[in-house]
Amino acid sequence: MPKKIIIDCDPGLDDAIAILLAAGNPDVEIVAITTVAGNQTIDKVTLNARQVCTLAGLRGVPVAAGAGGPLVRDQTLAAEIHGDTGMDGPAFIPPAVETDPRHAVDLIIETVLAHPGEITLVPTAPLTNIALALRREPRIAALVKEVVLMGGSYTRGNITPAAEFNIHADPEAAAIVFSAGWPLTMVGLDLTAQAAATPELLSRIGALGTPVSRFVVDLLDHYNANVGKVHGAMATIHDACAVGRAIDPSLMEVTPAHVEVELRGTATYGMTVTDFRGRSGPANTSVATKLHTERLWDLLIGSLETIAATTARTSS
Amino acid sequence: MPKKIIIDCDPGLDDAIAILLAAGNPDVEIVAITTVAGNQTIDKVTLNARQVCTLAGLRGVPVAAGAGGPLVRDQTLAAEIHGDTGMDGPAFIPPAVETDPRHAVDLIIETVLAHPGEITLVPTAPLTNIALALRREPRIAALVKEVVLMGGSYTRGNITPAAEFNIHADPEAAAIVFSAGWPLTMVGLDLTAQAAATPELLSRIGALGTPVSRFVVDLLDHYNANVGKVHGAMATIHDACAVGRAIDPSLMEVTPAHVEVELRGTATYGMTVTDFRGRSGPANTSVATKLHTERLWDLLIGSLETIAATTARTSS
Amino acid sequence: MPKKIIIDCDPGLDDAIAILLAAGNPDVEIVAITTVAGNQTIDKVTLNARQVCTLAGLRGVPVAAGAGGPLVRDQTLAAEIHGDTGMDGPAFIPPAVETDPRHAVDLIIETVLAHPGEITLVPTAPLTNIALALRREPRIAALVKEVVLMGGSYTRGNITPAAEFNIHADPEAAAIVFSAGWPLTMVGLDLTAQAAATPELLSRIGALGTPVSRFVVDLLDHYNANVGKVHGAMATIHDACAVGRAIDPSLMEVTPAHVEVELRGTATYGMTVTDFRGRSGPANTSVATKLHTERLWDLLIGSLETIAATTARTSS
Amino acid sequence: MPKKIIIDCDPGLDDAIAILLAAGNPDVEIVAITTVAGNQTIDKVTLNARQVCTLAGLRGVPVAAGAGGPLVRDQTLAAEIHGDTGMDGPAFIPPAVETDPRHAVDLIIETVLAHPGEITLVPTAPLTNIALALRREPRIAALVKEVVLMGGSYTRGNITPAAEFNIHADPEAAAIVFSAGWPLTMVGLDLTAQAAATPELLSRIGALGTPVSRFVVDLLDHYNANVGKVHGAMATIHDACAVGRAIDPSLMEVTPAHVEVELRGTATYGMTVTDFRGRSGPANTSVATKLHTERLWDLLIGSLETIAATTARTSS
Repeated sequence: MPKKIIIDCDPGLDDAIAILLAAGNPDVEIVAITTVAGNQTIDKVTLNARQVCTLAGLRGVPVAAGAGGPLVRDQTLAAEIHGDTGMDGPAFIPPAVETDPRHAVDLIIETVLAHPGEITLVPTAPLTNIALALRREPRIAALVKEVVLMGGSYTRGNITPAAEFNIHADPEAAAIVFSAGWPLTMVGLDLTAQAAATPELLSRIGALGTPVSRFVVDLLDHYNANVGKVHGAMATIHDACAVGRAIDPSLMEVTPAHVEVELRGTATYGMTVTDFRGRSGPANTSVATKLHTERLWDLLIGSLETIAATTARTSS
Repeated sequence: MPKKIIIDCDPGLDDAIAILLAAGNPDVEIVAITTVAGNQTIDKVTLNARQVCTLAGLRGVPVAAGAGGPLVRDQTLAAEIHGDTGMDGPAFIPPAVETDPRHAVDLIIETVLAHPGEITLVPTAPLTNIALALRREPRIAALVKEVVLMGGSYTRGNITPAAEFNIHADPEAAAIVFSAGWPLTMVGLDLTAQAAATPELLSRIGALGTPVSRFVVDLLDHYNANVGKVHGAMATIHDACAVGRAIDPSLMEVTPAHVEVELRGTATYGMTVTDFRGRSGPANTSVATKLHTERLWDLLIGSLETIAATTARTSS
Repeated sequence: MPKKIIIDCDPGLDDAIAILLAAGNPDVEIVAITTVAGNQTIDKVTLNARQVCTLAGLRGVPVAAGAGGPLVRDQTLAAEIHGDTGMDGPAFIPPAVETDPRHAVDLIIETVLAHPGEITLVPTAPLTNIALALRREPRIAALVKEVVLMGGSYTRGNITPAAEFNIHADPEAAAIVFSAGWPLTMVGLDLTAQAAATPELLSRIGALGTPVSRFVVDLLDHYNANVGKVHGAMATIHDACAVGRAIDPSLMEVTPAHVEVELRGTATYGMTVTDFRGRSGPANTSVATKLHTERLWDLLIGSLETIAATTARTSS
Repeated sequence: MPKKIIIDCDPGLDDAIAILLAAGNPDVEIVAITTVAGNQTIDKVTLNARQVCTLAGLRGVPVAAGAGGPLVRDQTLAAEIHGDTGMDGPAFIPPAVETDPRHAVDLIIETVLAHPGEITLVPTAPLTNIALALRREPRIAALVKEVVLMGGSYTRGNITPAAEFNIHADPEAAAIVFSAGWPLTMVGLDLTAQAAATPELLSRIGALGTPVSRFVVDLLDHYNANVGKVHGAMATIHDACAVGRAIDPSLMEVTPAHVEVELRGTATYGMTVTDFRGRSGPANTSVATKLHTERLWDLLIGSLETIAATTARTSS
């Protein structure tokens, strides 16, 4: 039986890849997609999620919009990376999927309560929705199967020298999530740096020659260009790594650690301070350290092939 | 038409007086009582709220339990003041009122949306529920009539030299509430210090000779004893002041100010830094400065008389 | 035998009054005047100190310049109160006193070591020099007689809602001074608010009809005007209160407290968090609470008379 | 002409190696050794410095003791690494060198003023002395040739997950040093991790078969054992790297960056937040990134040979 996952995301270029990776993989079942302001505003990322669902042939999976801004801090977006639409690059896909009327936080709570012990949460965005769900219904901490989030770093950040974007965009929410006492895996920048959008990967995807592969290539070209401008480096497909871990834990090595989100630092606000030696407290997180990169790309290619085959069949 | 109020509370000795003050006053209508962990745990304060409703003859007013702990920080309680039950002192009142099945946060949101522009929120507890409601449904900021909260101080604190208990118990929630851009009155310690539970007040209440007045005298005796032990001073009936302001704004003088909740200070965490000169930002709060104390006590006596009369009639 | 005092100051309108108060009083002997950047830059406040010494007929008292800026934080000045010269108002007095070649920090250390147990330090400025002296020669903590500083507040600040100017101008230095374990009296805003430059006081001083009284009246007129513009209130002669306390401890009532300087708060940086209940730590400070205002003014009048008499005699 | 250096240190096992490296190298001349509390108390580290000078045959080089504790924060030591003496391991060497009567801070200032533009400061300890010297005599910022310090990290810390020991031991002093506007090189953990005390290095040193080489081997054996217990890793000879850089800049590659010391973080206090992209401010530091390790060891072997030859000659 496939693992039930909820993707809580802010598409976002790499979020789109993450959704596609999950949508085409037989080992996971997307039971809900929830959105949260992050890379762009809540309206834009929700529209983008609906586009990606349409492209992926996902029907019947609720797409619910959540928090329009962070818990306590002022809002920051990532337009310089993801563009004005939040998913600049590929052509617009008229969405064939509506927005669910429920609030993302309610949908997360309902779904976890309805499937106790079965839901894997995969947040690939600021953790506002997850934190609100925990505070609104604390029982979900004991009722999820696990949480695999993209965010943080145990060395250096990207949005600041110390902090990674998703955590920095809502550090107080992240602090709630890291201290919830649930099974938690942090797939952070140290891991995702091993998932660069290399020319080889793009060639391999391009060679598929399907609509969905063309979408992905357009997206990654744009992503590489923007990241190149800002960071002088290739883009890394962060969010897909978290989904990859949910699909197949053996894709990456993890080490237990105590992770604390810095809430008071001036230059370090939103840093995931990661203690592998246990001096700061007991381990609360499995921290991903090493990725079997080729195996992740094999999964992605597989998903794109499946989506292409399925959507071709459906649309014919 | 009476003003519709929601009392968000953590009874708590002075919360009990606040509910009674509102319950017997013709100018306000309690449309909901919501509870939040603060003076004691959520279970205890909710039970206490149900007792007070029973005593006050409130029927049909939903009593809904909310957050069991603060948003981000670790929980602190105030057992040294309010006792192990959270309402030590008076005899237990078997509650004739059930807990509403809805979550306090949902009830607040529903009620505000159902009565746009009509609801006055009167929080007399840590602001966790109010903050969660704002983040779950940001539209309530524009749809409440106003917010009159008991909390904070513009000089010194009580739980620490700098911070007042309600704000200190959940500073991040308070920061959300103070920055929400809604009409907000802060009834803080500088004001409530003018509402001491003096022997004269106790005599006056005791002279009523009714079940509800006996409850109040027992409660205030206990309150005075505990505050005397901890602070070496008379108790002040903090929460009733906020309800008093909701009933009759002319009961107290206010000054506009920019209030910011200190979230990073070591010795000042949870302080409501109050700038009357506008250097830190535009005014976001009406800060209560001077209480017409006797008029508040007149209102309280009036409420206790009304309750005694009504409940006598009902139970006969 | 008069008490030996070092005035560490940043004249500064009220610093000038403080020096005059000490210069004309028989119960204290100024053994050194040291300067530190604060109200204005180090060059300006040192020149001002030399002017005041000249006016006061102080000869042979070394005037040494010290730190040109705070220990860790960025520099702030108080030109809006004390003017471009740091002592705007009275006419310029050609200084008859040279600047001592020694650094203020060295002079403080030398003087304390030369008179073990005899020196009272009276800082009326940011505490940079005092902190540097403590760190350069820790033995002075045990060798001073006592420290009586003007600075801080146990309720509200003046430069920010939470912080007083002298402490806020160098909070890290203040933290060093308050934790040095020496006999320390804090003469803060709560006390100095009782030393307003009232019209009655100005009349009384003006009636003396001497050069020094004219200087003081000019100065206080200017001071009142500036404080009126900034704070909408009368000026209070802060620094003279600390000298008053050094002259006669019975001039004010004090209460022991644990005082901690807030170093991490955003809105509370530089606040002197004052715990009278001892929960934050043992008492490290005598906090001045009540001033016998008229007795302070009597002392001041006495000093001005003595100075006028002495300088008349000298210059004749 | 050899480059004049002042080593400001807290020996400390690796400080001892650093002194030896400099003492035997013809391209640098140690003009002063100043000590500061750090790895151990000021008395212990000063005694250790005198032992090392004796061993190295340094005569006439002043050894002056400085600050006995950090500027603002509470003191921490590193006894778990450097032992109760601060230089556990080798046998005690009766010192043939006295402690200079001057304070380290005064000696640093005097020396820099006496040789304008010629002195390279090499701090290998908490930066208390250097910060005090800067605040006591700001002109030294323009008068040193450069500063090459061992401290900090641009990825992870050692004493905490975020902070390196020397910086963490006095973050406020470090903040002063990094913002002084002088030519500054940070030789931090990322660089020194490339200078491990490997068995090969120990063999190579041991093969010299001289008194000084035996001292170094004893010391490194002890160092490796302690670091092994605490960190589960080989020791790295941190401080020698900074001296190596002073001797020959080409020993390591550097990248300009803006470095800010975190003073307010809870879990990140004392972290050197290093921005290579210039978003946080202009570059204030050359950050060492890559070490030519073998060349450093060649220099060290050369120094040990020179010292052995010189001291043999002297003592014969």
